[in-house]
Amino acid sequence: MVRGFRFAGVAAGIKSSGGLDVGLMEADRPCPAAALFTRNRLPAAPVVLSRAALSRSRGMVRAVAVNSGNANALTGERGRADARRMAAAGAAALGADPGQLLVASTGVIGVPLPIDEVERGIAAAGAALRPDGFADFATAILTTDRAAKTAEREVRGARLIGCTKGAGMIAPNMATTLSFVATDASGPATAPGALARLVAGACAHSFNAMTVDGDTSTNDMLLVMASRRGPAVGATALGEALGDLLDDLARQLMRGGEGVHHVVTVEVRGARTERAARAVAERIARSPLVKTAIAGADPNWGRILAAAGNAGVALQPTRLGLDLDEVAVVRGGVAIDQADRDGRARAVMQRAEYTIALDLGQGRARAHHLACDLSHDYVTINADYRT
Amino acid sequence: MVRGFRFAGVAAGIKSSGGLDVGLMEADRPCPAAALFTRNRLPAAPVVLSRAALSRSRGMVRAVAVNSGNANALTGERGRADARRMAAAGAAALGADPGQLLVASTGVIGVPLPIDEVERGIAAAGAALRPDGFADFATAILTTDRAAKTAEREVRGARLIGCTKGAGMIAPNMATTLSFVATDASGPATAPGALARLVAGACAHSFNAMTVDGDTSTNDMLLVMASRRGPAVGATALGEALGDLLDDLARQLMRGGEGVHHVVTVEVRGARTERAARAVAERIARSPLVKTAIAGADPNWGRILAAAGNAGVALQPTRLGLDLDEVAVVRGGVAIDQADRDGRARAVMQRAEYTIALDLGQGRARAHHLACDLSHDYVTINADYRT
Repeated sequence: MVRGFRFAGVAAGIKSSGGLDVGLMEADRPCPAAALFTRNRLPAAPVVLSRAALSRSRGMVRAVAVNSGNANALTGERGRADARRMAAAGAAALGADPGQLLVASTGVIGVPLPIDEVERGIAAAGAALRPDGFADFATAILTTDRAAKTAEREVRGARLIGCTKGAGMIAPNMATTLSFVATDASGPATAPGALARLVAGACAHSFNAMTVDGDTSTNDMLLVMASRRGPAVGATALGEALGDLLDDLARQLMRGGEGVHHVVTVEVRGARTERAARAVAERIARSPLVKTAIAGADPNWGRILAAAGNAGVALQPTRLGLDLDEVAVVRGGVAIDQADRDGRARAVMQRAEYTIALDLGQGRARAHHLACDLSHDYVTINADYRT
Repeated sequence: MVRGFRFAGVAAGIKSSGGLDVGLMEADRPCPAAALFTRNRLPAAPVVLSRAALSRSRGMVRAVAVNSGNANALTGERGRADARRMAAAGAAALGADPGQLLVASTGVIGVPLPIDEVERGIAAAGAALRPDGFADFATAILTTDRAAKTAEREVRGARLIGCTKGAGMIAPNMATTLSFVATDASGPATAPGALARLVAGACAHSFNAMTVDGDTSTNDMLLVMASRRGPAVGATALGEALGDLLDDLARQLMRGGEGVHHVVTVEVRGARTERAARAVAERIARSPLVKTAIAGADPNWGRILAAAGNAGVALQPTRLGLDLDEVAVVRGGVAIDQADRDGRARAVMQRAEYTIALDLGQGRARAHHLACDLSHDYVTINADYRT
């Protein structure tokens, strides 16, 4: 439990499965909040509303109402009205100012929200709020996910709890998913402006450094609320705890990704700049030929280097080094001549999690990016999602 | 037959299948040539050699020697020496200046070229050159392609003949493949500098506007040679004929792409600038979620618009219109409310070739990009290529 927060998740009949599909996360008074939103140029109505509300309230938020089963995206003027009705329903349930309510939606795109069901669901969730209701809330935000994804951390007596959802459309800027974190930490690091910086920094190495399929959805949102009911924590310690929690959630997202059997950390080091390292790591993680090689546990190192060559970063071929976990594969830009090199590399690639480490041999900067396989299951799930 | 050219393709034992694997395309004297090369930052040795040779010879080339089965890429100093030996072998076979020989290789990456076999193959190809040997040449450059891809055009009495190869790793800048075109057109448009401009222009709307999987190989090369043995043709007419021939080859590449069952033209119109139109068209064509929807013939128009939103181009949601061939799907940013809209759209998406037309409603600029499906066959082929 996190001091100052209550949570609920209820079944409102939006999902045909009858599962939980409306969630509410509430602070006992308006409190500092910070969010990252999708950079997609066609943001869904709830994203537009929440971004504007957060700006107008100067980062003070009372609660967020979420529905799954329908994204309220590409739904025109009606969609914008429905998002406002969601915020109003949340405010009514809590006796709060509608301007301090955020909303989020996830699910099918381009279909009007069943707003009557959503409104009834929000009212029911308001009545069901409990300090220990986080598991229900985390379940109510899921779509095709196989299970709820949650994580908790403690830092100097303060608590953080977070959940996330998303199975496809996971890409950087940001990880095309909904994520919510509640913390009771107090102190200057949790003031609205400071909290926003903390969140941006923590995301750079977690949610903004992972690729499942390179698509970024219309609905992404990551929200952190700080009730300030617990002990004061410094910015560094709180940022580390938050980054650690988000990395945990990001890895759960990857593991639970559509058709994902391998979660691979692509580490690029020896770059001239961190920006260059990031570009190379992301390009490798995004390459369909690398992703199919991961799926086939095929130590086709040429594909990894060829993908690195497509990052727009100048490379010196003779300086490149490549390792798969403990197995050295390339030195000086050419394959190491060693008995059973491929067999040992293949054994690494059969692991559920491993690291592809590429040394550019040009400098000291480094970066990493989470990658996964492109498998038959991914095609099956996505070729047949609506049908 | 194209005046002034001879061609050959022989089996040199590089491919374990015993198929044709060394090709030679020869002009009867050094003639103007223009080429586009991969923009990958780790270009293969034959690309490095050919780019330098073309520059030093000021665009005058006698012949190109090609091998399939091995890409001579990421092969270090030995690879560079092997590329020089290929050029020398071609020059010896023809009694030509080695500086006017280009070379190209395609096949497995990171394995040293079996240079003795390649040299013997080039000598045998030199002895086998015939004016009607183009089919053998076109076959000798293939790797996992199911069949040779060739096209011919005539313009004002001048002839053009071309071939291409490539099944995966097909992406813009450029279409990660080998392509060779011979023409006997003469006139100012075929002088080296003019020819280079012509080729760049013709590629912009064909080879540089197609995506199979978004990866660009280390070995791409497109070469056009003009023997100037035929009639003079103006730049506009010749450019159109060349563009048409390259578009034909590009579509053959797409149709023959790994696991491709649908070739889709993504047309974006109503953009403010052609650059913006191109960015949106390419982003749609590249989206894994759109590509799996194409595979499943699933009229999930939300994915198409969501991909458009990721192109970094500002969009006005209420102005968007979307059609699948003759079926109107979206107007004013929302789905058209029409009986059996999805059924009719699905019928279009079951066609082998169709058009996704997105109108941004902002201006008059337009662009197109060729796309295809992401299918189970693609995963099967690429997860198991080397093993």
